[in-house]
Amino acid sequence: VVPNPRAAFLVIGDEILSGRTREANVQVLAQALGPIGVDLTEVRVVRDDTAAIVSALNSLRATYDLVFTSGGVGPTHDDITADSVAAAFGVPIGLREDARALLEQAAAARGMTLNEGQLRMARIPQGAALIENAVSAAPGFRIGNVHVMAGVPMIFEAMVAAVVPTLPTGTPVVSASIVVGRGEGSFAADLAGIAAEFSDLAIGSYPFHRNGRFAVEIVARGTDGARVEEGVVRLLDVIGGERGVPAAAP
Amino acid sequence: VVPNPRAAFLVIGDEILSGRTREANVQVLAQALGPIGVDLTEVRVVRDDTAAIVSALNSLRATYDLVFTSGGVGPTHDDITADSVAAAFGVPIGLREDARALLEQAAAARGMTLNEGQLRMARIPQGAALIENAVSAAPGFRIGNVHVMAGVPMIFEAMVAAVVPTLPTGTPVVSASIVVGRGEGSFAADLAGIAAEFSDLAIGSYPFHRNGRFAVEIVARGTDGARVEEGVVRLLDVIGGERGVPAAAP
Repeated sequence: VVPNPRAAFLVIGDEILSGRTREANVQVLAQALGPIGVDLTEVRVVRDDTAAIVSALNSLRATYDLVFTSGGVGPTHDDITADSVAAAFGVPIGLREDARALLEQAAAARGMTLNEGQLRMARIPQGAALIENAVSAAPGFRIGNVHVMAGVPMIFEAMVAAVVPTLPTGTPVVSASIVVGRGEGSFAADLAGIAAEFSDLAIGSYPFHRNGRFAVEIVARGTDGARVEEGVVRLLDVIGGERGVPAAAP
Repeated sequence: VVPNPRAAFLVIGDEILSGRTREANVQVLAQALGPIGVDLTEVRVVRDDTAAIVSALNSLRATYDLVFTSGGVGPTHDDITADSVAAAFGVPIGLREDARALLEQAAAARGMTLNEGQLRMARIPQGAALIENAVSAAPGFRIGNVHVMAGVPMIFEAMVAAVVPTLPTGTPVVSASIVVGRGEGSFAADLAGIAAEFSDLAIGSYPFHRNGRFAVEIVARGTDGARVEEGVVRLLDVIGGERGVPAAAP
């Protein structure tokens, strides 16, 4: 069995760490990688600080098959991701004509010309391939195993959609769940027994509070759909509850 | 000037990395630490895997003044945080009578006795101090500079409230912002000039999409409120727009 590609996600942004903004892109990336069998294994959030970005990026790209980043690719002074990525790879960065052309086309379509700030978004580390997106003209880029994308969720999502078809794939993870209306402690021993028996599945237990009551969702995940289904049938037999609807998960 | 204490947050949870659950606790922790002058500097999210937890925790606790964790402290087989923290510190873990008493009181209040699963939540690494909370009876704990808390947002929030008064403090960071109704590229050069002039402030520019239009919030952050106000006045003078209401920030 070939193991799935393993991925890490580096979120670059003071606004997440200051509490101004609630992070939104981890879930988008996770839900895009799962179906193609890429295992998102670690996330880091660091400040808009060159040393912090370089250090985290070099650690992650050496450890994981794939790395994704979000944030810091706009036209303003606090957008330092492209320069930091170039520094991490030890390559020069400069204005790229194909990136400039994308920005110029978009400006022209609005009857404008590029200003100095926008031109900054055409600076791309040497050796990178552009990641285009239909929402904004400014491209992200891929260099080595690192995919550099925008932080604005709508643009991030468009870039993820552009990148997914280019990635190595593995065996997709499928999941199914049950919802149980009693405390975790009451079925923990039974659940541990089932988890040991189905050691090829990842079985997690997640309490939640909804419509004024506490309940627990037990999720079985694995690469063999039939086995996941067997696990869920066993959970229902032994613990009870009802099948959960993943889309309605809290 | 004494630098602020620096903190890291380790989120433990397959459910975040699989995309099942959107992470909610980073923002809660960040908004609790800001007002007491503790700088949240890094976040990591790792899987429910002992080696991953031990490695991340040992790296973070050596680097930062304070570390917080969320997740993996419930009664089920997939809750491995307490054991992993004990392993990271190289200390034994066992049933703690004061933790058991908290759980027993809560069970008795509902006319119940503790079951085996619930008793698992009274296992605490040697040398730790309990972190109580009013929502669930199960305590978190502090060992060294590491604060171990629940992942369920309502319980996490209660534990953060219990922990905050025990922390070392620094100079609170205050922020103010303006909202500008034109593209970042159009004012990037002016903004860079102001950022260079106000180098004692962190000035960030965050595009967003709301009510069908694009706009930008420019946020100035710093420890000197008068200086933040000066910065905002300069931003309004040079770039225009109007004062933003941080509470309404996207």
